[in-house]
Amino acid sequence: MRIDIISAVPSLMESFFGHSIIKRSIDKQLLELNIIDLRSYGLNNYNQIDDYQYGGGAGMVLMVEPLFNCIQDLMTKVKYDEIIYLTPDGIPYKQKTANSLSLKKSLLLIAGHYKGIDQRIRDHFVTMEISVGDYVLSGGELAAAIMADTIGRLIPGVLNDETSALEDSFQDGLLAPPVYSRPADFNGWLVPEILLSGHEEKISEWRLNQSIEKTRLRRPDLLDENL
Amino acid sequence: MRIDIISAVPSLMESFFGHSIIKRSIDKQLLELNIIDLRSYGLNNYNQIDDYQYGGGAGMVLMVEPLFNCIQDLMTKVKYDEIIYLTPDGIPYKQKTANSLSLKKSLLLIAGHYKGIDQRIRDHFVTMEISVGDYVLSGGELAAAIMADTIGRLIPGVLNDETSALEDSFQDGLLAPPVYSRPADFNGWLVPEILLSGHEEKISEWRLNQSIEKTRLRRPDLLDENL
Repeated sequence: MRIDIISAVPSLMESFFGHSIIKRSIDKQLLELNIIDLRSYGLNNYNQIDDYQYGGGAGMVLMVEPLFNCIQDLMTKVKYDEIIYLTPDGIPYKQKTANSLSLKKSLLLIAGHYKGIDQRIRDHFVTMEISVGDYVLSGGELAAAIMADTIGRLIPGVLNDETSALEDSFQDGLLAPPVYSRPADFNGWLVPEILLSGHEEKISEWRLNQSIEKTRLRRPDLLDENL
Repeated sequence: MRIDIISAVPSLMESFFGHSIIKRSIDKQLLELNIIDLRSYGLNNYNQIDDYQYGGGAGMVLMVEPLFNCIQDLMTKVKYDEIIYLTPDGIPYKQKTANSLSLKKSLLLIAGHYKGIDQRIRDHFVTMEISVGDYVLSGGELAAAIMADTIGRLIPGVLNDETSALEDSFQDGLLAPPVYSRPADFNGWLVPEILLSGHEEKISEWRLNQSIEKTRLRRPDLLDENL
C-alpha cells in the first residue's frame, strides 16, 4: 500500500513516522509512505503557498496553484484510489472508514494548514473530505498522521499479533472492557477475581458484559448504530 | 498554563512539539509542556512498563506500578486541575471541552499504548477519560498531541490574529464556509463573484448561508445540538 501526504509543514510529522507502527510497516515493506513538501511547488522567489482570503477575514489560505501543480505532478506517477482532504468540516472519521481504506492500493492525503485550502482544489480533485473529530487543529498534519496510523496498523502483518486489532474498541461496535496486569494485589487494589480464575468462558462473558455496560453508559449512540 | 504528558514512547511526539503552534506558545512562555518518559519509572533491570493481561488475550497492558510511581512523583510537584487518560472508550472530545480546558492551570495527560493501562490507575487517579475519535490508534501519543494542539492554540496570545480561532468550525456550532485566494480565475475556475464585490455585509450573509447549508448536508447532528 502507498500513502502520500501533501503538507505545508512536513517537519511536524517526521518523528511520528520515524518511530511508530508506521515505521515498522515501512521497514517490512508493507507500506510506502511519502511526505511531499507543498513549499517545493511554491510560487515566485519566496516559494509562496498561502495568501489572504477573498472577501476579507482572518487567516491565510493555501493557494490553488501550488496545490494544483503538486497534485498534477503526483498524478502523472500514481493512480490514486482516493484523494482525501483532512478538514474539520469533513465527514467524521470512523473505524469502518479506516477498515475500508486499509484495503486500497494508494491514497493521497492533503493536510490543510492555516484557514484551509482554496475551495477549487476541493471541487476538482478531492474525492473524500474527512474530519478526525469535532475540534480545530492548527493544521491537518496530526489528522493525516492519525489516518496513516489507523490505516497502517490494519495492514496484515503490521501488528505482531493478528488478533490484536480485531479485539479493539469499535471493531465489534462496543467499547473495550477494562484490562489489568500484574500484580493482582497492588496496595490493596485488587484485580477482579474472575480474571484470575482461568475459566475462559466466564472471562469472555464478563468482558462482554463490561463492554456492553460501558458502552451503554458512555456511548449509547454506538449501540443504536448496531441495531 | 502547564501540560504534562506521560508516554511510553515520548520520541513519537518530539517533532510535533518542536515545530507547531505549541512550539510558539512555549517560546512565548504562554505554555509549559513536559513529556515524561514512563520508562524511567520502569521496574527491574529491563525498566519494564508493560505485561500480559490477566484473563488472557492479545496485547500488552501498561502496568499499574510504574504509572503509580510516575503520577505520585508528579503530584508532589504539581496540583493538577485534571488528570486525563486518552482512550478510545473515553468521552468524545469536542471543541467545547478544548475551550474549557484552555482555561485551566495544569493538566496531566496519560497517553496509553498497546492494549491500554491497568484499570486501577483509571479508578484511582484519572478524572477525565477522553477519546479523540471513534477509531483505534496504535498509541495515545497522537491523541495527546491533538489535545495539546487544540488547547494550546486557544491560549490568548498564541495565535497571531486573535479573531482567527473564533471563526473556526465548531466555535459557532457550524462548519466553516468555503475559502478562496488568488488568482480569481485559475484555468477558468472562478472565485464566486460575491467574494470579489467588497460588500462586507453581503459577504457575511453568503458565508453564513454556506455554513448553514454545508452543516445541514454533512452534519445535521450539529444543528440539533444547537437548538
